[in-house]
Amino acid sequence: MQLAADGERMIHNGVITLTTDFGITDSYVGTMKGVMLRIAPAARLVDITHAIRPQNVQQAAYILQTFYGYFPPGTIHLVVVDPGVGSQRRAIALSTPEATFVAPDNGVLTYAWRDALDRWGASACAVYELADPRFWLTHVSHTFHGRDIFAPVVAHLAAGASLDALGPRLASIVEAELEQPSVGRTGGLIGRIIHVDHFGNCITNIMPQHLEEARLNDKLSVRIIDQRIMGLQHTFADVPLGALVALIGSSSRLELAVRNGSAAQTLGVGPGDIVRVYGAGTE
Amino acid sequence: MQLAADGERMIHNGVITLTTDFGITDSYVGTMKGVMLRIAPAARLVDITHAIRPQNVQQAAYILQTFYGYFPPGTIHLVVVDPGVGSQRRAIALSTPEATFVAPDNGVLTYAWRDALDRWGASACAVYELADPRFWLTHVSHTFHGRDIFAPVVAHLAAGASLDALGPRLASIVEAELEQPSVGRTGGLIGRIIHVDHFGNCITNIMPQHLEEARLNDKLSVRIIDQRIMGLQHTFADVPLGALVALIGSSSRLELAVRNGSAAQTLGVGPGDIVRVYGAGTE
Amino acid sequence: MQLAADGERMIHNGVITLTTDFGITDSYVGTMKGVMLRIAPAARLVDITHAIRPQNVQQAAYILQTFYGYFPPGTIHLVVVDPGVGSQRRAIALSTPEATFVAPDNGVLTYAWRDALDRWGASACAVYELADPRFWLTHVSHTFHGRDIFAPVVAHLAAGASLDALGPRLASIVEAELEQPSVGRTGGLIGRIIHVDHFGNCITNIMPQHLEEARLNDKLSVRIIDQRIMGLQHTFADVPLGALVALIGSSSRLELAVRNGSAAQTLGVGPGDIVRVYGAGTE
Repeated sequence: MQLAADGERMIHNGVITLTTDFGITDSYVGTMKGVMLRIAPAARLVDITHAIRPQNVQQAAYILQTFYGYFPPGTIHLVVVDPGVGSQRRAIALSTPEATFVAPDNGVLTYAWRDALDRWGASACAVYELADPRFWLTHVSHTFHGRDIFAPVVAHLAAGASLDALGPRLASIVEAELEQPSVGRTGGLIGRIIHVDHFGNCITNIMPQHLEEARLNDKLSVRIIDQRIMGLQHTFADVPLGALVALIGSSSRLELAVRNGSAAQTLGVGPGDIVRVYGAGTE
Repeated sequence: MQLAADGERMIHNGVITLTTDFGITDSYVGTMKGVMLRIAPAARLVDITHAIRPQNVQQAAYILQTFYGYFPPGTIHLVVVDPGVGSQRRAIALSTPEATFVAPDNGVLTYAWRDALDRWGASACAVYELADPRFWLTHVSHTFHGRDIFAPVVAHLAAGASLDALGPRLASIVEAELEQPSVGRTGGLIGRIIHVDHFGNCITNIMPQHLEEARLNDKLSVRIIDQRIMGLQHTFADVPLGALVALIGSSSRLELAVRNGSAAQTLGVGPGDIVRVYGAGTE
Repeated sequence: MQLAADGERMIHNGVITLTTDFGITDSYVGTMKGVMLRIAPAARLVDITHAIRPQNVQQAAYILQTFYGYFPPGTIHLVVVDPGVGSQRRAIALSTPEATFVAPDNGVLTYAWRDALDRWGASACAVYELADPRFWLTHVSHTFHGRDIFAPVVAHLAAGASLDALGPRLASIVEAELEQPSVGRTGGLIGRIIHVDHFGNCITNIMPQHLEEARLNDKLSVRIIDQRIMGLQHTFADVPLGALVALIGSSSRLELAVRNGSAAQTLGVGPGDIVRVYGAGTE
């Protein structure tokens, strides 16, 4: 695939991923799929998750970062976590040489945007406001833009519509405040749990580069609540059943787990809780 | 698409939606999909929800009404909420000029049927009993007609079978008792919560035409339990964070919500609870 | 379809089923789908369930048995329940004349393997170790082989790769210990609940052949905890609303249910609990 100078020549492959906080007990997601199939009968719709915590923009931004790079080039990623629905918040499409992201402009695309700027630079990326109602449903409700605006727009894109037809080009997106780990007064790195997964694994905002910058190696120790975890392991099976383990997880972040158990439950912790990392003997 | 005088000439588009109370922890839905793909390898299977409360025909009827109109013409909607499985209840297909609905004949198609009669009249619709075992699996269990009867029938329809081959034509369907809002002795409209969605929004059986008929406008007030909500808003963002709000929701019903919160939890209410609506100053 | 002397000439039909313990709140399943669609854009991905209890190999083996036979010949069934991820456990593909199964070699394929040996014999089946990294992602993590090994392997198979290219052929698989019902000292059959489904139906390890061998007919009685259920019924509707009922369920196992209710809740029982079956008047 050729890099496009800007997004308007992106060739979409028909794959559309869906990430929302809509849950799976209503017809909200199914309705969006109906709207999309009306416009783009050949679209391939792939659910990522509909269990983003209601209105949790930070969690959606994190989840998006974990998966989008694994999809084929030309995929459209739709993220609808939209606490400002019906207000003046904008709706946007972000085009990179690899994918197109469509979402409310509230920070859910923060990582995708920063990753794209890092990797390809601003000139290879483009942001458009979804402003042209020709790509929306005829009747737009005040409470369900997922169905009335986002779903038809992504379907039109999948069916070949040009990004620059959607609306005016914007210079940038709204970015979420995403806390970075910091160095503590007594040394060591201070981070936070940003996500607890289905297994109870606690994923932090500490990435390998943060450990490197702080000169922390495999001999590190992690403190959380009143527990200490010694050493960085490779996988769950490196510790006994039921033991706590610290490792770099599959999304390249420091993760606290319990082998065949739930670290969140064992520790009684959740998103927002503080994690401290020290070097060998420096605590 | 041309209107058919009756359903037998409906051209199906290959899209099949699935709405059940089967949950997502077993293989029940997956097994049905296997059966369908054996018969109709090109079918497009779209999950709506499998979280209808067990055996709750009213909820299934409501959920169906919220999404079917958004799908492309020629879609088959399969609804399996089937408290009478294995008993003498009939299984039916309802054909309208827009879609085909397949379900046990227990009321789940009530809204779809009434909407079709309103919109196209009885002569454009047709009901068939699923009576011909040629379209079923060879072995039919007593407890899982979703797999053994409904799935193969919808797949045969998607693959081109004619509706009138399925079995004898029926004059009507079994309709669920769906309570309508009523006018109270002291004036005002008395309705009920019929669904609580994933966000805790409380959806009622009061529709805009009921408000109109009762001459209630945006200056209305809603009473539920010991709370009063003043005025009808357009969207959640019209009130402060955490505040109660009344609005006409995305399924065209009076809905009680809490901005970025759960109305069901805040109010401690659920399906069946009573909602009273009064005009300005008439309470 | 012709029987293959061994699995390598299996023609895959592009359908891939997914059964995991990954849950649906993270992007784990979606990420696997992205990997698969990159390699096999035309693959049909069918979710069975992602709610296998974490690391529960027995439950996954049971669930797999309930659905695989309903899929079209040539389907690939991927099961990722993988407590040993990152350890020395093998990853395998099992080929039968009907389907291909891909999973960690930890017992999740026990029923599929035994069924295949019973039905076609060992010479018609083949097991391969997933050993050749050409079919994996370039970077393989220590904690997410679902994404890095299993997903790309099944996608390559779906796209036409030959099974015998995946790695060396193995003579057999690791089998899980799956308890069989036994005959009690005072007569009768002693079994266990192996699965509680979404409705609270309690599915046991007692199959029709066990009842036959123990000369138990429809006049049997079931004892569980302090309750007795008299007779084997055909379906839920054979007993009054709210009553306990014993029947052979849709997966051909003795099942305890409550009509329009939850047997697990009514009885306060779950997986592992003992069920005793007696003949008429022999208790």
